[in-house]
Amino acid sequence: MINEKLFNPSGVVVVGGSDDVNKPGGAVLRNLLQSPFKGQTYVVNPKADSVQGVKSCHTVEELPQVDCAIIAIAAKYCLHAVEVLAKEKGTRAFVILSAGFGEENKEGAALERRIVEVIDSVGGALIGPNCTGILTTNYNGSFTSPVPQLDPKGVDFISGSGATAIFIVDNGMRKGLKFNSVWSVGNSAQIGVEEALEYLDESFDSEHSSRIKLLYIESINNPEKFLRHAASLIRKGCRIAAVKSGSSEAGGRAASSHTGALASPDIAVDALFRKAGIVRCSGREELTTVAGIFMYPELKGRNIAIVTHAGGPAVMLTDALSNGKLEVPHIEGPKAAELLGKLFPGSSVGNPIDFLATGTAEQLGYILDACENDFEEIDGIAVIFGSPGLFPIYDVYALLAEKIRTSKKPIFPIFPSYGWVKGEIEEFVRNGGVYFPDEVLFGNALAKVYNTPRVEPEDAQFPCVDVERIRSVINGAGNGYLSPDRIHDLLDAAGIARAKEGTADSEAECLELAREIGFPLVMKVVGPVHKSDVGGVVLNVRDEETVVREFRRMMQIKDTYAVMLAQQLRGTEVFIGAKREGGFGHIVMCGLGGIFIEVLKDVNVGLAPVSPDEARAMIRGLKSYKIIQGVRGQEPVNEEKFVEAVVRVSMLVRTAPEIFEMDLNPLLGNRDEVVAVDARIRIEK
Amino acid sequence: MINEKLFNPSGVVVVGGSDDVNKPGGAVLRNLLQSPFKGQTYVVNPKADSVQGVKSCHTVEELPQVDCAIIAIAAKYCLHAVEVLAKEKGTRAFVILSAGFGEENKEGAALERRIVEVIDSVGGALIGPNCTGILTTNYNGSFTSPVPQLDPKGVDFISGSGATAIFIVDNGMRKGLKFNSVWSVGNSAQIGVEEALEYLDESFDSEHSSRIKLLYIESINNPEKFLRHAASLIRKGCRIAAVKSGSSEAGGRAASSHTGALASPDIAVDALFRKAGIVRCSGREELTTVAGIFMYPELKGRNIAIVTHAGGPAVMLTDALSNGKLEVPHIEGPKAAELLGKLFPGSSVGNPIDFLATGTAEQLGYILDACENDFEEIDGIAVIFGSPGLFPIYDVYALLAEKIRTSKKPIFPIFPSYGWVKGEIEEFVRNGGVYFPDEVLFGNALAKVYNTPRVEPEDAQFPCVDVERIRSVINGAGNGYLSPDRIHDLLDAAGIARAKEGTADSEAECLELAREIGFPLVMKVVGPVHKSDVGGVVLNVRDEETVVREFRRMMQIKDTYAVMLAQQLRGTEVFIGAKREGGFGHIVMCGLGGIFIEVLKDVNVGLAPVSPDEARAMIRGLKSYKIIQGVRGQEPVNEEKFVEAVVRVSMLVRTAPEIFEMDLNPLLGNRDEVVAVDARIRIEK
Repeated sequence: MINEKLFNPSGVVVVGGSDDVNKPGGAVLRNLLQSPFKGQTYVVNPKADSVQGVKSCHTVEELPQVDCAIIAIAAKYCLHAVEVLAKEKGTRAFVILSAGFGEENKEGAALERRIVEVIDSVGGALIGPNCTGILTTNYNGSFTSPVPQLDPKGVDFISGSGATAIFIVDNGMRKGLKFNSVWSVGNSAQIGVEEALEYLDESFDSEHSSRIKLLYIESINNPEKFLRHAASLIRKGCRIAAVKSGSSEAGGRAASSHTGALASPDIAVDALFRKAGIVRCSGREELTTVAGIFMYPELKGRNIAIVTHAGGPAVMLTDALSNGKLEVPHIEGPKAAELLGKLFPGSSVGNPIDFLATGTAEQLGYILDACENDFEEIDGIAVIFGSPGLFPIYDVYALLAEKIRTSKKPIFPIFPSYGWVKGEIEEFVRNGGVYFPDEVLFGNALAKVYNTPRVEPEDAQFPCVDVERIRSVINGAGNGYLSPDRIHDLLDAAGIARAKEGTADSEAECLELAREIGFPLVMKVVGPVHKSDVGGVVLNVRDEETVVREFRRMMQIKDTYAVMLAQQLRGTEVFIGAKREGGFGHIVMCGLGGIFIEVLKDVNVGLAPVSPDEARAMIRGLKSYKIIQGVRGQEPVNEEKFVEAVVRVSMLVRTAPEIFEMDLNPLLGNRDEVVAVDARIRIEK
Repeated sequence: MINEKLFNPSGVVVVGGSDDVNKPGGAVLRNLLQSPFKGQTYVVNPKADSVQGVKSCHTVEELPQVDCAIIAIAAKYCLHAVEVLAKEKGTRAFVILSAGFGEENKEGAALERRIVEVIDSVGGALIGPNCTGILTTNYNGSFTSPVPQLDPKGVDFISGSGATAIFIVDNGMRKGLKFNSVWSVGNSAQIGVEEALEYLDESFDSEHSSRIKLLYIESINNPEKFLRHAASLIRKGCRIAAVKSGSSEAGGRAASSHTGALASPDIAVDALFRKAGIVRCSGREELTTVAGIFMYPELKGRNIAIVTHAGGPAVMLTDALSNGKLEVPHIEGPKAAELLGKLFPGSSVGNPIDFLATGTAEQLGYILDACENDFEEIDGIAVIFGSPGLFPIYDVYALLAEKIRTSKKPIFPIFPSYGWVKGEIEEFVRNGGVYFPDEVLFGNALAKVYNTPRVEPEDAQFPCVDVERIRSVINGAGNGYLSPDRIHDLLDAAGIARAKEGTADSEAECLELAREIGFPLVMKVVGPVHKSDVGGVVLNVRDEETVVREFRRMMQIKDTYAVMLAQQLRGTEVFIGAKREGGFGHIVMCGLGGIFIEVLKDVNVGLAPVSPDEARAMIRGLKSYKIIQGVRGQEPVNEEKFVEAVVRVSMLVRTAPEIFEMDLNPLLGNRDEVVAVDARIRIEK
């Protein structure tokens, strides 16, 4: 378990420290010695008395008491070292860089487990094995380079891959990103991304803790834990962005239903991130751009002022922001005219605010003051300032740095002349600044951040379902598809409206049922999967004669063992599905029915339990949402009833996790109600 | 007009050259003197006898004969200088850096016109005014920095914005891009992007000319010329990528029809680029990434091998490529096993080919040889190689450079440790290499390049239309919506199938017409715009009694002055529209009808004349294409008939450019035919 010794040890030993800085053991010692670490450093190296100027012990046994051990020796020697350190030297933090454990073979996995047992037994923390180490503001326990600038308010970055971590750090440094900690969790034998989040959450201190977390993840082993702590951190004011790679490997599985075909573990990741309010990024460049945006005050509205000394990038940024549903509103009025008077002739303030290639730092100051104080509609400011290569622009970047510090609105600096104005940018970064090299990548990222849903409030209200009745149906059912009777029981218990209906396997029963339901009604075969394809659906049955004729015909259709009769409802076909997705619990999806799911895949997804707000956002985010609102004189679908049905389906599957997948397809929605007409539920216990 | 003196002058004078390199006149002289220019350099400066070591004339009159003049003096002095140079000094190439012309006010525009007249009168070429200059392999006539590495096979880059040009160059240099020429066309008084393309096209020499063109454009003044030369260059083997910014400013115009609402000048740009085969980019970073891809052999198929020493970036790249419809196919078999034997234990060759953090240059050589020679299914190779900071990797990058030179398949190098392995990357770039810093941006760009349609062949076949009849209808029509009779004439003349129909404004006429057309038929009001909204459409009319009853009812509806009767056809509703878009000619759009255009905006667009191949690609690219193919037992739409209808609509509007917009909405498509059921055509002469 993570403890304070991992972050702030009084002493660190590098077991396997050497003079060869081309090897991890040498490189990590060099990095440690060059880091601001103020405690005692020890080295264990059987072949040397002194390593990089540090006195070396030949064995771990010779060491004094030491809080933290960084281990860079062959895997087979690690267990012994850990045992001695944990049991005799009071060591409570371990960073094992060595490879050759669970990632390699079964023996390695067994060794890894034994090491964890030893460390667990003393309440110690283990990072790794098979990792590049950990970097904190107190010490550098990683062997990689480059080493980023440290800052207690900088990024906490947790990576499931060591090489990727350093590539992301390298990329982030170019933008001026500072780091509070970098964790390479390696094999996550004891501490994975989830545990790191848990620690950051539980140890969060609203005054001193950094509020920015970046994640690079290849798999989420415990989605529930992940969600709990990520959401909690965000509720405490943190901002989290993550790359979860491997998104395209999903799919390819045989699909037994619409939901099955549409769902994938990656969709579950999307849903989890939305629920927590995590900004999902697709790569390193985007991740560090979002992190840069996180370093600035939060953008509170859509209206951006673009301040520029060059037209082109401002136009491209306008395009990117507009595509991302942010606005670059026209600015006018007396205050705008006043500002224009302070700029060179030919400038414009209509937004983009273009103060020309000859614009000065002083003018930029006037513009930023006006954006901050006079143009109330403006929520954030993007400043594009590069150089055609004529003169130094230290004064401009210095002014920008000052305005960024004092402005309440976020001012995002875009420096397109990265290669040329190196000195100016380096100074800006050294003084704490973070900038963006490309206006379009910035604009896309800003829109992504702004459009990421807010984390769900902790007190979201959910309707009640009849848990006892649901459990009794589920407990009584075996694996496979539920019978219509049981489905009706479940829907009724969950409070999901359904069409009056019943099933008959004899003519007499069928007739009686028809009288009970009333006309018009619908008849469907029971048995075949794709009912319409085999002529197994008849609509608009208006009399008993037809009931009998169709019953006889349908019972001849292959695989048919009964006929279902149902009340014929009017309205627009909508769809709700749910599917169990490993540790994620259930994903719940909704959309319009028919071609909208089959051809256009126009569905949105949430993670159960889906709150009413989340369900509403899912519905409103559909491309076909206008149809739900009622387009060209068509009757709308009652949105709140649709929301409620989605929420109730999510409650049902939470109450009955044995439901492997379920489809309500279609439900018929009109102005007054949204009613399930056909349902399939598959149990897998 | 562009001439050879602009590129290869024997002498260049900088009019307004000074010692102050913080001003354009001083900076351009410095750049010129530092460039490989082998000819004579002159300076005109009234206040100095020598400038930056060059003897200075006090007036232009004192100059000897000189091919090319770079002018950096106040606008008001330019005309005189140009006159003397053009008429007395034999100058035939002018680069006017000075601002204060058409971009500022009317007087400036007049001055600009007079300068052009003078230069035109001697057959001279003019770049600018209000530009940053021109850079060629022979001399540097631009005042900006940084100056990129020159290479006759490098990029020809034409920019409508000077500052943007230098920002793009700066960005491109970071990836190792080399340039053959950089044109900042400024106000394009004589030479704009179109003229530059024309020159590059007409002077193209398959042996010596560079094949890579980049464009940054804010407006296309002559789309037809632009298309002609861009397409011609691409047919000659060139590759063109362009940013056309301002895409979001479109829209906001009152829409009088579906086509009007969906069309915008930006869509026309898209259509033009697709027709020419230009890769459209959204920003600087993407443009230079695509340019980097252009520096490598063309990717001939979808199958990419990913070679990596780190897992994470390979996974992210796989995601990006898969999202872009490229493949990372599984590699197996004896050759794969053989390769695996040459790598360290723990490596994998299944693709991604991961040869671990410890992988060597030698092993990379084996892998690349196998990809080149053994794995036939592989079309291109992406190599990801960074550094965790342990040891130098000069050998790896040197080997990569060699394999890139000798391999027939493109090998794309991705170097994620840009900040750390500076020395290695600089050497790679100095030796001619181009690399990519981010695997996801690279993957997205590669997919974009691969998925950009090929340029249309010059000999695309078009069906005939009855030009004489079309012209006669158009010549006889006034502005506004055409009457149904004229519409029928046009459709018949263009060979577009339409439903039998007619219009009646009396009961007797209506009955007669109904008998002629036959039952079932459709009745619609003539007059109201949105016919269904007012109850003005009745389907499935099966007898004369109904015809009479509905006629009476419909004539009561507001704005109705007649009733249209039409053959009732069966099939799927599809849509074809066309709209005149300034100099672009007509855009032609197609899609499914109803909600597909109204709600989902699922339309694709081409530029008239649309060839059958282009129409087919438009139809197949629809999100709803599966419906055209016939989904779940529904009858398909005859694709070739749909293609033909699109092509014929495009021929019609080419023949009748007076058509401002037209909708065929819907056409009904079934297995056998695609027939226009309702049409609106608006003329604006």
